[in-house]
Amino acid sequence: MTVTADIDTTTTTTVRARGAHGPGQPLEALEITRRALRADDVAIAIEYAGICHSDIHTMAGDFGEKQWPLVPGHEIVGKVTAVGEDVTEYRPGDRVGVGCFINSCGACDPCEQGEISYCENGVVGTYGGTDKYTDGEYSHGGYSQAIVVRESFVVRIPEQLDPAEAAPLLCAGITTYAPLKKWGVGPGKRVAVIGMGGLGHVGVKIAVAMGAEVTVLSHSDRKRDDAFAFGAVAHHSTRDGLPEELERHFDVILNTVSVDLDVDAYLGLLRFNGVLVQLGLPGNPMQVMARSFTQRATALTGSLVGGIEETQEMLDFCAEHGVAPVIELIDADYVNEAYQRTIDSEVRYRFVIDAATI
Amino acid sequence: MTVTADIDTTTTTTVRARGAHGPGQPLEALEITRRALRADDVAIAIEYAGICHSDIHTMAGDFGEKQWPLVPGHEIVGKVTAVGEDVTEYRPGDRVGVGCFINSCGACDPCEQGEISYCENGVVGTYGGTDKYTDGEYSHGGYSQAIVVRESFVVRIPEQLDPAEAAPLLCAGITTYAPLKKWGVGPGKRVAVIGMGGLGHVGVKIAVAMGAEVTVLSHSDRKRDDAFAFGAVAHHSTRDGLPEELERHFDVILNTVSVDLDVDAYLGLLRFNGVLVQLGLPGNPMQVMARSFTQRATALTGSLVGGIEETQEMLDFCAEHGVAPVIELIDADYVNEAYQRTIDSEVRYRFVIDAATI
Repeated sequence: MTVTADIDTTTTTTVRARGAHGPGQPLEALEITRRALRADDVAIAIEYAGICHSDIHTMAGDFGEKQWPLVPGHEIVGKVTAVGEDVTEYRPGDRVGVGCFINSCGACDPCEQGEISYCENGVVGTYGGTDKYTDGEYSHGGYSQAIVVRESFVVRIPEQLDPAEAAPLLCAGITTYAPLKKWGVGPGKRVAVIGMGGLGHVGVKIAVAMGAEVTVLSHSDRKRDDAFAFGAVAHHSTRDGLPEELERHFDVILNTVSVDLDVDAYLGLLRFNGVLVQLGLPGNPMQVMARSFTQRATALTGSLVGGIEETQEMLDFCAEHGVAPVIELIDADYVNEAYQRTIDSEVRYRFVIDAATI
Repeated sequence: MTVTADIDTTTTTTVRARGAHGPGQPLEALEITRRALRADDVAIAIEYAGICHSDIHTMAGDFGEKQWPLVPGHEIVGKVTAVGEDVTEYRPGDRVGVGCFINSCGACDPCEQGEISYCENGVVGTYGGTDKYTDGEYSHGGYSQAIVVRESFVVRIPEQLDPAEAAPLLCAGITTYAPLKKWGVGPGKRVAVIGMGGLGHVGVKIAVAMGAEVTVLSHSDRKRDDAFAFGAVAHHSTRDGLPEELERHFDVILNTVSVDLDVDAYLGLLRFNGVLVQLGLPGNPMQVMARSFTQRATALTGSLVGGIEETQEMLDFCAEHGVAPVIELIDADYVNEAYQRTIDSEVRYRFVIDAATI
């Protein structure tokens, strides 16, 4: 076997990657194998891989036990190099993407609705997952030269999108697009985004592109100018509490942060029929009063990721509306520094690894 | 002035009623006045008035300060005796109903959507409210011989409904119908109703009539037979915890009780996209984990009452589907005992006062 970016279609291929040998350990160069192509597989030479905050949590061991070594990355953009005999949608040379998941049961109620993230039998993550629906293969993610993925978990990257900038859309984009769409965001709607990090800044741009009036609620004023540049109509620092003038103001609030907030106070910012969508996962219970819901028929809900069809829809939407994440393109050798800067909220707004440097 | 059930159309009329002179005091016979008819008013000779648990709370002083004496009652059925000159929908002899509200601003966003309960400038309760949108009149409710109400807050009682049984629909009926409809209850949907009291038993019947598969979750087994008689497919006592087999089971859970429950555990009973609707108002904050929402895109929400048009729709629905509350018809002299029995959960399922005995 040779170390290569091109997948051998008939046998296991060894590729270079960046991963760690245990929780909390630095990422380093290592080699992993990719499977020979099955009939419904697409082989992808990876061009770009975004760094998602959940990569960092997983590699720190925050998301439970994993098998090591492990290669993270679920914001993957690349070019098709080969396809299995049953593949109909993609051909070599196509630019495609892979997001958070690479398989699901396909038979449960959410799967039948295309909502694979909520698969009742367990969705298989793009990395750190065991594919119990096929041969039990342990998955390695996008910080690598190549990947082999079932056709039905691959999406097409529209030509209008810069491929490096498109990478974060595969996770941050769909994670914010799905609830914004589900809860009817569009012209005439007022949206607040709590936290303007990797996830939040994409949420702001997508909500603006949907025609909504968008406000950023942030713990500091550091990104105020960016908020307006992204199309927000207002930016409020919440360090000293929530502005009174925002009471009963919003139709949808996207909470992209994972710290403990006074969610009940944020419910007070919702107007009639408004919805607060929790994307972050604070460690402690949220304390909410029944009255905060009944008085204006508001709701508290949460969302994971969207489905594959919806991811394609989101990519097409972003292409049409010129929505692109703001990225910092890095070499693979910089990944550990990038992790630290992401932890320190010192990234504007998403690191993307140039896979040619892996 | 004479004490009468027929409203004088040109001057204030004194009518008999049952009310109290202060919070926590027993209800007794007293007299109140009803206004002369305005152009858009309907005068109603009351036939029946339901006893809602919130009447009891209000009269106990639990819902804040009120002006006394106060006559409660917002589940009102009667016959039109006179109409103002601009009234077009109703004529003397029509059987009509009045629910929880008698006025609202009419101009705010919820009002424009017909959702008067959520009026942003303050809805005027059928009793214990001050009508700031007209002359500041203090409102007295349905435990009386007659009432004068704006046409736009009056609904028609379909002929197929027994008028005494129809009374509780004006509050308990619309309070359960509105969220069941909003959240898409119908054939193929699984609904749980927590608590089968005055509100809950109507919720069960309406959800069954909508075609859903309905389960009753109750602290005891006392009403198990009734649950099945009302069309439920299952009844579970929750005294020893929630049944494991109900995990990820329900599309909609209606929580009709006001005691502190482990709401987070109930969220575990929701399937993908499921919604828990809080109708009761427990005193303490509910503690919920973000993960309980994100994992299946579930939501926690609340609901007050429906609008007037929706109340009419609900009455027509109940008439068409033979939905009727189970009532105990009582004389007005029994009202204090009825209050105590309601507090003790010793009513099946709603007391209705025969207004002829007032």
